[in-house]
Amino acid sequence: MSERYLKGAEKLNELEPNGANNLIDAFNEVCPDLAKYTIEYPFGDILQRDGLDYRTRELVTIAALTALGNCQPQLNGHINGALNIGCTQKEITEVILQMSVYAGFPAAINGMTVAKEVFESRNEISV
Amino acid sequence: MSERYLKGAEKLNELEPNGANNLIDAFNEVCPDLAKYTIEYPFGDILQRDGLDYRTRELVTIAALTALGNCQPQLNGHINGALNIGCTQKEITEVILQMSVYAGFPAAINGMTVAKEVFESRNEISV
Amino acid sequence: MSERYLKGAEKLNELEPNGANNLIDAFNEVCPDLAKYTIEYPFGDILQRDGLDYRTRELVTIAALTALGNCQPQLNGHINGALNIGCTQKEITEVILQMSVYAGFPAAINGMTVAKEVFESRNEISV
Amino acid sequence: MSERYLKGAEKLNELEPNGANNLIDAFNEVCPDLAKYTIEYPFGDILQRDGLDYRTRELVTIAALTALGNCQPQLNGHINGALNIGCTQKEITEVILQMSVYAGFPAAINGMTVAKEVFESRNEISV
Amino acid sequence: MSERYLKGAEKLNELEPNGANNLIDAFNEVCPDLAKYTIEYPFGDILQRDGLDYRTRELVTIAALTALGNCQPQLNGHINGALNIGCTQKEITEVILQMSVYAGFPAAINGMTVAKEVFESRNEISV
Amino acid sequence: MSERYLKGAEKLNELEPNGANNLIDAFNEVCPDLAKYTIEYPFGDILQRDGLDYRTRELVTIAALTALGNCQPQLNGHINGALNIGCTQKEITEVILQMSVYAGFPAAINGMTVAKEVFESRNEISV
Repeated sequence: MSERYLKGAEKLNELEPNGANNLIDAFNEVCPDLAKYTIEYPFGDILQRDGLDYRTRELVTIAALTALGNCQPQLNGHINGALNIGCTQKEITEVILQMSVYAGFPAAINGMTVAKEVFESRNEISV
Repeated sequence: MSERYLKGAEKLNELEPNGANNLIDAFNEVCPDLAKYTIEYPFGDILQRDGLDYRTRELVTIAALTALGNCQPQLNGHINGALNIGCTQKEITEVILQMSVYAGFPAAINGMTVAKEVFESRNEISV
Repeated sequence: MSERYLKGAEKLNELEPNGANNLIDAFNEVCPDLAKYTIEYPFGDILQRDGLDYRTRELVTIAALTALGNCQPQLNGHINGALNIGCTQKEITEVILQMSVYAGFPAAINGMTVAKEVFESRNEISV
Repeated sequence: MSERYLKGAEKLNELEPNGANNLIDAFNEVCPDLAKYTIEYPFGDILQRDGLDYRTRELVTIAALTALGNCQPQLNGHINGALNIGCTQKEITEVILQMSVYAGFPAAINGMTVAKEVFESRNEISV
Repeated sequence: MSERYLKGAEKLNELEPNGANNLIDAFNEVCPDLAKYTIEYPFGDILQRDGLDYRTRELVTIAALTALGNCQPQLNGHINGALNIGCTQKEITEVILQMSVYAGFPAAINGMTVAKEVFESRNEISV
Repeated sequence: MSERYLKGAEKLNELEPNGANNLIDAFNEVCPDLAKYTIEYPFGDILQRDGLDYRTRELVTIAALTALGNCQPQLNGHINGALNIGCTQKEITEVILQMSVYAGFPAAINGMTVAKEVFESRNEISV
């Protein structure tokens, strides 16, 4: 295991406890290198970089996933992850709301529905 | 002119000097209400809100426009705008680079090409 | 509540009985302003305009949502809404079928699947 | 040449004078069957159908192309075509404006820019 | 029934046993011509052509559906179909993995999840 | 420079003579790591893999870029690259034509327009 992999796994586990192992287990039989590359490149290269703090990186990811509109599982994971590293519910809902401007109201509504599900699953709705 | 409109025009002009008038002029003959609504809703409602500072709002917008990949004129405008309100070139290029993970390398490369053009047009390349 | 809001709520309720309240309830805890803005801008501004009748406006919305392909809940809602304001099943299926040309057969098939579910839920299949 | 082809060519020529020959010439060397199929399926099958008049079919096409946001040449062609078969500038700009709701403001702005170019090229701006 | 239809139905049935009848049944009440056109154009025209073998055609389809990211039912069908006409699990997972480059990691992960479901449903996981 | 980087640069140069240096030069001032990562991950990891030959990998890339419809520079590069490693014009145009089914006729027409430009620039039109 390369240093990129080890640092990436650690970074992913900050977002989601045991996240690296969960990812490895998910694709172990079908394509284990998908998990390996996901740990190495996004988490081992990109999210290690200076210039933007982790919280801002999660907010821009939530923006992109909401705008793309076809990545509900990832949006769920990154909203959970953003909360885990200290983003507030308010920051997250502001990002999603803002996407109504750039990607349309359906994208914002569907993104907010995911946020609602995440907040409820954590028993944390208090906005 | 409503208060939403007046505050929105002021907010847009922070991003782009004379931006509100430029937008009005652009669509004056074909559909003036497109300019009016753009000033009122994105700039008069959304970008007035608390909970995220203007710089972070511009970074999430750059993320979304890079990921969508079909809004080059708006990406150009928002990169210029982000610089005008105090974002650094480094923050902007980090956001675009991160989009390689969520929207693929072509989206990141095309977004970075727009950033390069903006930086060059301002004689500010110094990353 | 502004006049835009009141007129928007009324317009939304034409599409879906009690639609405005349903929307408010859905996001009340997580981001109430998403419901407010959705009532104000799409329904209070855009759908109030002259130049296209409400039925044609719903057909172009169904076209866009089918082509985008990632807004199933909204497509469901607008097919129901279109029927509620007098569009025929035939008009709706023709719009969705036509999207095979502009967005591909998967988009048309997935859109038609939503239409089928809506028609069945209303016990109205009779095309 | 099948009946589908002949009827399709005629239907395409209603939108754009000499449109079928222009399409054939464009792809004659690289892939002539792309022109043949485009004449046969969209124009020979879909646009021949009952249930929606040609003007409404063009408006839903303009909606879809504006929302998709990556088909500028086709949007230009269909705005010209819509005008040629009797749609008004007002109907076209209302459809594009409405897309701000479903696909975001950049999509609507970029679509309106195409409409403006078409109207200017026809010396017909008079909205 | 035209020759295009008959040849198309046969081609579709190679991908999915009884696939043509399943498609006809699915849309029989809501829009039977959607099934007819799907059999005629994709399967009766395009997939009949020389120049690419059927297996390669399925791999490029899997690439496109993974990249688009909003056609899960079709991706499921084409992964099953690709296996039915002799593509290997390894070829399919390599195509999906490669999409991480062009459409981002979420698209690849969601596509691989569909592949995993298909492989499991066939009791064939053995990569 | 890692082994991934060196092997990736070599792989990219097979597609485009001097391609790695061109990529480095393009982003040298604005974000040099974008070039580095593009060489390392797509070309140094993914395109090194067994299970699909390089020609098939280029065809599935052309499929995805045509379907996405917003990556014209990359589509141009990969059509040139596919020809450079031995794909035929016929294979390329068949892939693009097939995308009319999965992403719609505008996507196929715009992709074919890029292919035509590439073939003409190489003085190789002879399909």
